[in-house]
Amino acid sequence: MTDDLTPKASSPTDLTDSVLASFDAARDERYRELMQALVRHAHAFVRETRLTEDEWDTAIEFLTAAGHITDETRQEFVLLSDVLGISMLTVAVNETDLDKVTESTVLGPFFVKNSPKIELGGDMAQGASGEPCWVTGTVTDADGKPIAGTRIELWEADDDGMYDVQYDDQALAGRAHLFTDAEGRYRLWGLTPTPYPIPGDGPVGRLLQAADRSPMRAPHLHFMVTAPGFRRLTTQIFIADHPLLDSDSVFGVKESLVRDFIRHAPGTPAPDGRVPAGTWTSTTFDIVLQRG
Amino acid sequence: MTDDLTPKASSPTDLTDSVLASFDAARDERYRELMQALVRHAHAFVRETRLTEDEWDTAIEFLTAAGHITDETRQEFVLLSDVLGISMLTVAVNETDLDKVTESTVLGPFFVKNSPKIELGGDMAQGASGEPCWVTGTVTDADGKPIAGTRIELWEADDDGMYDVQYDDQALAGRAHLFTDAEGRYRLWGLTPTPYPIPGDGPVGRLLQAADRSPMRAPHLHFMVTAPGFRRLTTQIFIADHPLLDSDSVFGVKESLVRDFIRHAPGTPAPDGRVPAGTWTSTTFDIVLQRG
Repeated sequence: MTDDLTPKASSPTDLTDSVLASFDAARDERYRELMQALVRHAHAFVRETRLTEDEWDTAIEFLTAAGHITDETRQEFVLLSDVLGISMLTVAVNETDLDKVTESTVLGPFFVKNSPKIELGGDMAQGASGEPCWVTGTVTDADGKPIAGTRIELWEADDDGMYDVQYDDQALAGRAHLFTDAEGRYRLWGLTPTPYPIPGDGPVGRLLQAADRSPMRAPHLHFMVTAPGFRRLTTQIFIADHPLLDSDSVFGVKESLVRDFIRHAPGTPAPDGRVPAGTWTSTTFDIVLQRG
Repeated sequence: MTDDLTPKASSPTDLTDSVLASFDAARDERYRELMQALVRHAHAFVRETRLTEDEWDTAIEFLTAAGHITDETRQEFVLLSDVLGISMLTVAVNETDLDKVTESTVLGPFFVKNSPKIELGGDMAQGASGEPCWVTGTVTDADGKPIAGTRIELWEADDDGMYDVQYDDQALAGRAHLFTDAEGRYRLWGLTPTPYPIPGDGPVGRLLQAADRSPMRAPHLHFMVTAPGFRRLTTQIFIADHPLLDSDSVFGVKESLVRDFIRHAPGTPAPDGRVPAGTWTSTTFDIVLQRG
């Protein structure tokens, strides 16, 4: 046992230095930066809280349970990131030109590729139940110039608060995509958004219960908006005056994304001539994309 | 849309405050403290690195892959904690009386309950292959008083660097427990520890590769020492002068746990009269437990 073989990890501070140094040889500079920052902040957390070994065990069990409940249609790590505000913070630190373009919010765990294509004026419900909602708007650049052919993906829960991927039969419903017309306009039938709890039968549900936190999301309609030459926008619109606006379980609400949803009496004809059997709502969401 | 419904999460700082406040109602004070510290440090990491959404996606995919490779005998989250030095730091922040009692180190992912019981002088190899190693020592309190009947669990890899739980047949081998005699003494046959890589076929292996970090552990023998009225000790002993001592992949080496392993020529009788067919080694590890 010689002095120059003396391990360097006998005190917490030396240990952190040793772990940081272990990433010095990373070939990718950004990877090194991220891992060293992760180590610094994770170690600061353990030191500050003086985390016990039983608590560490609990964290390992939590992550294991989250991994085991995650499958192709259930993403517990995204839920965890969402309820800790990490998803929303990641969105926030990447936004620029906030005063000129439409704000982003969380993607959530329920986006899927390969949604059905609908025509302008079509119905994204695709069999999902709920109150019809006529959604219209335009897509423009920051100077107000329309962006024709913009792809708009929309997805939302039905009036039982369920997304199609949560159905037993895995049918696609409550999601679709369409393209703006030559004037950048879009219009479609969706469903009036309804409040729903994020999935509560896994470790994230238990995390919220231990904090006496509500799992409810403020009612919303998801948008993902893609046009060549522009930054892809992932956002949601929310129903004005809803009591869940200021207690959204994933911190996704932004003031600029709150919209009036106007309810119409049964028998009132919609702009496209349709007369829904019961009540229906209408809303407008004009979207401004950022170049880049 | 009224002013008092204005969401509070429109800037990163406000967002962090909102997330912290969401844990205010937690019934358990320690839970609240831990979650709020977690949120503060996790948010500081995202803000400092200005984490991109693609990087966030990569992290979600990493955690998902770690969850999916984890099963009853493979614990990728423990490996992750180990290679980030978090396991070792958790050990370090919980240690006191370091100058009086035996130091702890990481548990690792290979401990299992229900190891075979062996008598004093018995063989923990239980069929695992390797060079025999005669291990002796005493268990005492900080005043040097022997602790009779102390349960000592030992486990280690075979000379292929594999633990029994990594074998195809799941046989128990390279692990056992025994009890100290009336004078606090223990003695047994184990295997001379050999270096081995931590499992590299999962996301943690890829993490190490991206950092050009070695997955090799310094050769070691695991101990878990339990006696009524004393803090349970989880530790390892390491081979003196081994070149891996200062680059252990999980930062587990402490100077006080490094031991000489003396190699004996073939034909040399061991203290118990056995004459191993080939070379064998011997080492001594006297253990001092902390009351509590």
